[in-house]
Amino acid sequence: MPELPVEVKELAARVRNWGRWGPDDELGTLNLIDAAAVLRGAAEIRTGRRLALGIPLDEKGPQTGVVPGRINPLRTMLMINHPYLKGDRRNFCNSDDSVTMGLQAGTHWDALAHVSYDGRIWNGYPADVVDYRGARRCGIEKVRTLVSRGVLLDVARARGVERLPGGSAVTAEDLDAAAELGRVRIEPGDVVFVRTGQMQLLRAGDRSGYVAPAPGPSLRTVEWLHRHDVAAVATDSFTGEVFPAELPDTYLPIHLLHLVEMGLTQGQNFDLEALAADCAEDGRYAFFVDATPLPFTRAVASPVNPVAIK
Amino acid sequence: MPELPVEVKELAARVRNWGRWGPDDELGTLNLIDAAAVLRGAAEIRTGRRLALGIPLDEKGPQTGVVPGRINPLRTMLMINHPYLKGDRRNFCNSDDSVTMGLQAGTHWDALAHVSYDGRIWNGYPADVVDYRGARRCGIEKVRTLVSRGVLLDVARARGVERLPGGSAVTAEDLDAAAELGRVRIEPGDVVFVRTGQMQLLRAGDRSGYVAPAPGPSLRTVEWLHRHDVAAVATDSFTGEVFPAELPDTYLPIHLLHLVEMGLTQGQNFDLEALAADCAEDGRYAFFVDATPLPFTRAVASPVNPVAIK
Amino acid sequence: MPELPVEVKELAARVRNWGRWGPDDELGTLNLIDAAAVLRGAAEIRTGRRLALGIPLDEKGPQTGVVPGRINPLRTMLMINHPYLKGDRRNFCNSDDSVTMGLQAGTHWDALAHVSYDGRIWNGYPADVVDYRGARRCGIEKVRTLVSRGVLLDVARARGVERLPGGSAVTAEDLDAAAELGRVRIEPGDVVFVRTGQMQLLRAGDRSGYVAPAPGPSLRTVEWLHRHDVAAVATDSFTGEVFPAELPDTYLPIHLLHLVEMGLTQGQNFDLEALAADCAEDGRYAFFVDATPLPFTRAVASPVNPVAIK
Amino acid sequence: MPELPVEVKELAARVRNWGRWGPDDELGTLNLIDAAAVLRGAAEIRTGRRLALGIPLDEKGPQTGVVPGRINPLRTMLMINHPYLKGDRRNFCNSDDSVTMGLQAGTHWDALAHVSYDGRIWNGYPADVVDYRGARRCGIEKVRTLVSRGVLLDVARARGVERLPGGSAVTAEDLDAAAELGRVRIEPGDVVFVRTGQMQLLRAGDRSGYVAPAPGPSLRTVEWLHRHDVAAVATDSFTGEVFPAELPDTYLPIHLLHLVEMGLTQGQNFDLEALAADCAEDGRYAFFVDATPLPFTRAVASPVNPVAIK
Repeated sequence: MPELPVEVKELAARVRNWGRWGPDDELGTLNLIDAAAVLRGAAEIRTGRRLALGIPLDEKGPQTGVVPGRINPLRTMLMINHPYLKGDRRNFCNSDDSVTMGLQAGTHWDALAHVSYDGRIWNGYPADVVDYRGARRCGIEKVRTLVSRGVLLDVARARGVERLPGGSAVTAEDLDAAAELGRVRIEPGDVVFVRTGQMQLLRAGDRSGYVAPAPGPSLRTVEWLHRHDVAAVATDSFTGEVFPAELPDTYLPIHLLHLVEMGLTQGQNFDLEALAADCAEDGRYAFFVDATPLPFTRAVASPVNPVAIK
Repeated sequence: MPELPVEVKELAARVRNWGRWGPDDELGTLNLIDAAAVLRGAAEIRTGRRLALGIPLDEKGPQTGVVPGRINPLRTMLMINHPYLKGDRRNFCNSDDSVTMGLQAGTHWDALAHVSYDGRIWNGYPADVVDYRGARRCGIEKVRTLVSRGVLLDVARARGVERLPGGSAVTAEDLDAAAELGRVRIEPGDVVFVRTGQMQLLRAGDRSGYVAPAPGPSLRTVEWLHRHDVAAVATDSFTGEVFPAELPDTYLPIHLLHLVEMGLTQGQNFDLEALAADCAEDGRYAFFVDATPLPFTRAVASPVNPVAIK
Repeated sequence: MPELPVEVKELAARVRNWGRWGPDDELGTLNLIDAAAVLRGAAEIRTGRRLALGIPLDEKGPQTGVVPGRINPLRTMLMINHPYLKGDRRNFCNSDDSVTMGLQAGTHWDALAHVSYDGRIWNGYPADVVDYRGARRCGIEKVRTLVSRGVLLDVARARGVERLPGGSAVTAEDLDAAAELGRVRIEPGDVVFVRTGQMQLLRAGDRSGYVAPAPGPSLRTVEWLHRHDVAAVATDSFTGEVFPAELPDTYLPIHLLHLVEMGLTQGQNFDLEALAADCAEDGRYAFFVDATPLPFTRAVASPVNPVAIK
Repeated sequence: MPELPVEVKELAARVRNWGRWGPDDELGTLNLIDAAAVLRGAAEIRTGRRLALGIPLDEKGPQTGVVPGRINPLRTMLMINHPYLKGDRRNFCNSDDSVTMGLQAGTHWDALAHVSYDGRIWNGYPADVVDYRGARRCGIEKVRTLVSRGVLLDVARARGVERLPGGSAVTAEDLDAAAELGRVRIEPGDVVFVRTGQMQLLRAGDRSGYVAPAPGPSLRTVEWLHRHDVAAVATDSFTGEVFPAELPDTYLPIHLLHLVEMGLTQGQNFDLEALAADCAEDGRYAFFVDATPLPFTRAVASPVNPVAIK
């Protein structure tokens, strides 16, 4: 009986945003990013400091084969100093490269079309809007820009640990504590970055440990994110939520609640370590953020190199 | 005798920045982006309007095979609503995708390692720092962030045309006229977007016409960009410079002058049409820009979806 | 009304082999290859001459983008003389390469799962046995070996032309004339190679001309192949059948009749030019053939380099 | 001092075939396959039984990442029952697939250009005939056909074990014993299959155990293969030779001796289990073999699905 447990279904009903932005909406909570949110973000730019949050895109990425076919970037050279004019290297020589990779191989946003259950994706669209051609609805290219105020919720620091233990569920109280630590109030349209410290494992080369078990957002944070009208949420882990899941007969249920029910764009494998150090140092946990995905047509995800600017 | 003509060599000597940021520099003119440039850019954010400049990443991209192996994005589905729990579609179903593409297939930045001549890349590094593993020096991952003030130089509009004709060389006077049109003064560290209108051809589906012949920056703009200490320059064409080239025995000579001599990061296939319309409407040709590349390790280029924010 | 025309449906009913080899069959006419067929083929080996029929696998292949995503082989180097022991090139150095390609990019066999109509593939299996994972039924890996007697039917030569004109339908009479020219009698289990000369266009670099219009097997050869219990049929063209099709409201109808109805494995892009010259010279149009596909699991096609041995 | 040890260099000098087939040769010992060898092979076809030796090409292949970039086949669907005529599924629907893979991912032949040392590949060609474009000399496409008599040397059975232990060096005496067991005399131009049983590990899903440590040909078999004028040699292991190597300061030295010195084409990951069972049953260890590679232009290897026919 692997149907979703009743408590998850009840939670789903409480956070469901279907129809909130009309029957044709494909953006979900990204609609909450308005000019005010962008200006609120811009107001956080004070020193000109910039921090990129993307992990290196190479074969040392977090993919271990656990998701079949989702491979780490395989980049190869197409040309190496190829001389174009009669083979003369004293003139124009070109180097060019190519890549094959899972769109979720590294730091990425899930498109709202990424997951489904009960035959539905976000806003109630039938799941078969995704076929071999990709996502006819809610593909990542519909997110034209993703720019707003960003807020780091450093849950690890708020709990007083370097890194949450694998399998540890982040709770609403954790998020409140982290917001308090950062002396920041979440406002509608903010992009929230939840730090667990799990990225330290990947940085140390422990790919398997990084993948699972993992700490992360849980059934106990979904309503919090809903209530605060967060525009998007990103984590520093592979699964983007506590793993293994809290309840039997669930598998990545937060994905379903965020993407399908709330229309909440979510991201994984964000490296929040340097950002966290920076925020701890200057005491400022809000910043301007641009995390606009690449416009892959009909894609169910996109790599991204988000930048926090303070 | 396809050696570079003497006038190009003399121009090269005049704009050469080798050593300007030390013998170990791998950033070139991106060093000109300091906190002041970022803050100057941030000051341009007034309405919260955002415009993405990346072209769609799909099989309709501009690659025609003219650069062997540089293919348009080939995105395929790895999973389509794959049910994870005992095949039950009432629970978690996953869609995942994968891509193979040339890193210069769409809107992209060239890394400083992208081209060489006379056995040298930027800063005088030997060209063989690029090998089958990629660029040991000046790979795109060295550009950690690319955030600054952006300026649109709408040359087409300044010339009073919809689109410059193919093969038309943009001149220093064109850039001055466009700056005057935009009532903007270029400052050190600015990122400059040169619009020719060539992108209209690609948008109309004329891939071959888009590729060549092309208008663009020329031998007559190199010193201008050097004198103004531009941090990076992007164009709305395939070649990024006038094509065919102005002189015999040259092939993409501006690439050599920008990348090898000046260390000037340059980008191609930027869609500046909507941005140009917006600037014409509000009369503001300066904006905040984030065009941070993806951190592909040792890559000689990266796709990017730049965002202009006003 | 793009339903199949009634005459095609009637033809389909006449050649349908569903159930002939049981309800679980996934091989179709390849079942006709028994030990006798192999021995009959082996008996044709008399001089030890070998001719490979595969076209070069590289970027000059026949793919023009007409089938979206089916790209010519993109082969890139992973390593080039990489020294494994402390970087010392006096010891082991390795070169390695990688490829991305459509499985039907070059010379290939279609798996029986390659096409469907009316919701059915070969033997009446529902078309949805093919999903994002590939072909659960009738994938190319089910063809464990493809070895038999081969027969060249040189239709071009029988008609006295170098090459059939584009769009020319091969008929049953053509096949009879070619068999007579070759003084060969088709026997059950033979693999038949139908030469039109179209490959000359590809060899001359005329990719578009090669693709279409094309001569080839037609509605008028289907019953002939059925009556003679041919095990597999291969052609020297892109489409494998006359193109454009003979009737309105049809598109590659021979594919449907061969693959879906007869369960007849078919191949395209076979280079029969050298073989034809050889057969013309020695007057022997029958030979031993091994054209075993690569065992790609669940694939709907496989590249192959068939070898004729005389 | 990772130069090759002196005993390996002396062995190299004894087996070196450089110049034996002229200064322009790119085939090495494959030159030994003449018409007589093919006819000798054909004479072994008596029952019409066929056995394919290729391992399945899918994500469960033997690649573990130990050779960076050499990935198991990643096959994805380009189309799934795509209706071509006005979207009507009652008519032609197409399924198509694509693959990305290391050319040595599964059962494959190494091209003679695959490895080098001291700046040389086979026949003394400079190693830099391999560059980003592939192998200008000795690419796999130069092997037009690979058809001959095949002989199974079942070393495991001759030693009376199911499988040789990892790291066990096969010796000349092993090969003699296996030939005696098979009552077969090696003749010039034969293709030899050396069975260790190592493939059992891969079949059981033990990928890492399969890769290393591995039994296989060693410094003690090189002269044997040279003396018998073997045309090509294939093994049922990942490395194709005993691993780790027998001497310090060596890494895959048999590769160097076979490919560089002898010009002996060698193959790995051949599944010899069913063939061995068959040979044990009928007592016949010689057969006809076609193991013609795919004609990848300038490639340093090719996948192959070899077929033994008895």
